[in-house]
Amino acid sequence: MDIIDRENSGRVINVSGAEIGGGAFTLIAGPCAIESREQLFAAADGVKAAGAELLRGGAFKPRTSPHDFQGLGAEGIRLLLEARERTGLPVVTEIVDPRQIPLFEQVDLIQVGARNMQNYELLKELGHVDKPVLLKRGLASTIKELLMAAEYIMAGGNERIILCERGIRTFETATRSTLDLSAVPVLHEKSGLPVLVDPSHAMGAARFVPPMALAAVAAGADGLLIEVHADPAHALSDGAQALRPEEFAQLAEQARQIRRIVRG
Amino acid sequence: MDIIDRENSGRVINVSGAEIGGGAFTLIAGPCAIESREQLFAAADGVKAAGAELLRGGAFKPRTSPHDFQGLGAEGIRLLLEARERTGLPVVTEIVDPRQIPLFEQVDLIQVGARNMQNYELLKELGHVDKPVLLKRGLASTIKELLMAAEYIMAGGNERIILCERGIRTFETATRSTLDLSAVPVLHEKSGLPVLVDPSHAMGAARFVPPMALAAVAAGADGLLIEVHADPAHALSDGAQALRPEEFAQLAEQARQIRRIVRG
Amino acid sequence: MDIIDRENSGRVINVSGAEIGGGAFTLIAGPCAIESREQLFAAADGVKAAGAELLRGGAFKPRTSPHDFQGLGAEGIRLLLEARERTGLPVVTEIVDPRQIPLFEQVDLIQVGARNMQNYELLKELGHVDKPVLLKRGLASTIKELLMAAEYIMAGGNERIILCERGIRTFETATRSTLDLSAVPVLHEKSGLPVLVDPSHAMGAARFVPPMALAAVAAGADGLLIEVHADPAHALSDGAQALRPEEFAQLAEQARQIRRIVRG
Amino acid sequence: MDIIDRENSGRVINVSGAEIGGGAFTLIAGPCAIESREQLFAAADGVKAAGAELLRGGAFKPRTSPHDFQGLGAEGIRLLLEARERTGLPVVTEIVDPRQIPLFEQVDLIQVGARNMQNYELLKELGHVDKPVLLKRGLASTIKELLMAAEYIMAGGNERIILCERGIRTFETATRSTLDLSAVPVLHEKSGLPVLVDPSHAMGAARFVPPMALAAVAAGADGLLIEVHADPAHALSDGAQALRPEEFAQLAEQARQIRRIVRG
Repeated sequence: MDIIDRENSGRVINVSGAEIGGGAFTLIAGPCAIESREQLFAAADGVKAAGAELLRGGAFKPRTSPHDFQGLGAEGIRLLLEARERTGLPVVTEIVDPRQIPLFEQVDLIQVGARNMQNYELLKELGHVDKPVLLKRGLASTIKELLMAAEYIMAGGNERIILCERGIRTFETATRSTLDLSAVPVLHEKSGLPVLVDPSHAMGAARFVPPMALAAVAAGADGLLIEVHADPAHALSDGAQALRPEEFAQLAEQARQIRRIVRG
Repeated sequence: MDIIDRENSGRVINVSGAEIGGGAFTLIAGPCAIESREQLFAAADGVKAAGAELLRGGAFKPRTSPHDFQGLGAEGIRLLLEARERTGLPVVTEIVDPRQIPLFEQVDLIQVGARNMQNYELLKELGHVDKPVLLKRGLASTIKELLMAAEYIMAGGNERIILCERGIRTFETATRSTLDLSAVPVLHEKSGLPVLVDPSHAMGAARFVPPMALAAVAAGADGLLIEVHADPAHALSDGAQALRPEEFAQLAEQARQIRRIVRG
Repeated sequence: MDIIDRENSGRVINVSGAEIGGGAFTLIAGPCAIESREQLFAAADGVKAAGAELLRGGAFKPRTSPHDFQGLGAEGIRLLLEARERTGLPVVTEIVDPRQIPLFEQVDLIQVGARNMQNYELLKELGHVDKPVLLKRGLASTIKELLMAAEYIMAGGNERIILCERGIRTFETATRSTLDLSAVPVLHEKSGLPVLVDPSHAMGAARFVPPMALAAVAAGADGLLIEVHADPAHALSDGAQALRPEEFAQLAEQARQIRRIVRG
Repeated sequence: MDIIDRENSGRVINVSGAEIGGGAFTLIAGPCAIESREQLFAAADGVKAAGAELLRGGAFKPRTSPHDFQGLGAEGIRLLLEARERTGLPVVTEIVDPRQIPLFEQVDLIQVGARNMQNYELLKELGHVDKPVLLKRGLASTIKELLMAAEYIMAGGNERIILCERGIRTFETATRSTLDLSAVPVLHEKSGLPVLVDPSHAMGAARFVPPMALAAVAAGADGLLIEVHADPAHALSDGAQALRPEEFAQLAEQARQIRRIVRG
């Protein structure tokens, strides 16, 4: 399964100044969904203070039910760019339709979510975009399929791809999904692309996020995606899994300590 | 989980004259991918002779690897419409991008494949199209998520939805996927929408298709999707699972006999 | 994976006069757990009248919680033998410990349940017993592992083994487990041993048992295991999935009709 | 699901002087199977030198195929007790049949393997034994079922139970099983029993063991079970996943460093 060019092995991807892979350790944090300027700025200030390298926030939210909050859309992206101005952090947000690409012109890193990992038309378009792509593993996608999805982007010429494990679907129901940390060393071996881990979506409960985030670092992840909200109890989307800024700051400190141990 | 209007229960969906649901039993057959006029016509003549009600054929093929045959695209749809002219059978083919909708103007039934079951932007667009939609269950989607995906289409006003079980992903590797026939009675109970079963993709081997097709009928399916190819050994896509026209004819006969027993 | 001697292919196993495999079609029915003489006899009379070939009833019940009813034990077996006397039907019941073998001396068919499919010490002992064994697939066992478990029994000299599919564990929670009917043709191809299906445990709800039982027959199963209780609402174990005798009689009739279609 | 007495929460279990749980961090290491005195002693000396607290070694080996090496049996236990004499390390080994209990009289910690997690007759017997039990999670057992299995032992009066996550069965085939590290914080929350992790069996490949072992520690595991063999290439059982003593020593050092970070 040597489907990714081994010359890419271990290389660093530069995201508007922030480095991912190649020995760097990168924290990406922010709210699941952008709800308002006030909410976004509160989270952004918190993650900046805690030393995160990138700011995340969802403008287009794919939700299982059409009756759930679907995100602020283009307005959300505008707010995210304001938050970048304010904090100096590059930003990452999710795309769900190839027709949205023009809206992402100012975005630093484009995320493809788990549900769209095999939306090949979207992947093909992103192969022609001059921006790095954060590609999340589908809930029921094998490691091989994730690499094949990366191939769809690479086939168009865009090789700046960052992979992300975010939990797979199993029979276990005690957690929302099962975080497959084995994917970290396996993906490193097979592709050399940077591998991040998002424990927030996988666990679905904030109290389980820190142990699994630290486990991801110990397993060799090149960084973490963490949901942070200044007021989780009133979040419009997935509040139960968001850390408060001070919890994130403590996690970030422990994560960097473990990183130093595993990287020697 | 009463998310689907029970008034729809058991109603029939008319697809350019062919009936699906409401007591009808419907066979949809044809090649996985349209490869050429000759190949398509050979299969179309065979399925017509065997009494199929609709002709299927893929023009846009989502494949796990970008290096596999991706289908003939718009030219494939043109050939499919020629085959309809020739056989009189309404046609169904898969859409993979909302921008393709204009190409499907003449198509009788639009299929959403397993990989796009949670491509919500595509589903939303199909909610505004005046055509029935065949919605396949994702490989790792729960029954509830399939119904929620149907809701995305219905929310736009299009209630002509036909559900399709095509195998789920499990730990078992002896078959390509595990056909979850339990979904048939469960979906009927929860939604009242017609439920078809596609055993060809689930099994991945032609010799296992007839027993599982008959099992689907016994479980109460409103019809079957069967891959038929006049020369499976030379198919460009999934040939190993295609029946020859004469095998399909025999299956169709047994399927209708079993249907009579289970419907009294 | 040619681990089972192909000379066994399709051969019939004689269980005290009842035939299983080799073209025969066999219905095994009775209560999940034996609760009392009255309860057992009511069910036994019902399944006898409906034409079942064997009577089932659990004396030793492996339950997930130690606080649930664990069965009547040796007394249950005595009642089961009385019911055999009364109805003339051979009986099958589950063993959970190799030390129980002497208690099963009069039993016609010894069942190994899903939880003990890889209890190798038990399997080895059953290899030396002069009785047929009904071996159920484990909830998370592959088809290959089921055949390997059969090998453990055969290695001791006992080749009278009947396999049984009873549902596997998947991510789907709408049914208790996912009945993997694909296992029927695959097991037939790989082993030639008789393959029964138990839809009662897989579905966990009586209303879903008939469609899945019929589907199993259409898929080629050599017979069915069906839970029958004269008063399901008051059953001590798994009452929700038990059919009443008259429901079983109707199912038996339809099952035999479908059997005739698929066997020509 | 408050099935375990919360008064047990976080308590320490004393295994012949070695502590497990209650803040202790415990390394258990040794060969998968005991093959000979020489092989066992080489591994035992290595794990002792690296600072392991207990020595493991399998005498009775449940193997998927009856034709694979099944262990040395009683002779294996005698060799293990010799190795205890030599190193001073308490020993743990697996039981597979209730009739073997007398053979385990001198063993310090009795292991119940994944395949026997729902062998309730065995669990019941262990409820009456005055020894701690190491209970491994079944390959397809939920966290709730693991706790219920522990209940079977506790119901007999033996509350000295240590839980162990060793990988669950999922659709992913890149690793032998999927190590579910989420189980660590969830089991701690639900039971307060000590939780160990065995990454060797889960990964099936030695090069993936260290990252997953460290991840387990970061997730909060109370200790690790690691397979160590002085000559993995010639091991009779699962050699591909065994670490050499010097690799284990390095892992042990990093594991203790991470433990200090996560326990503050």
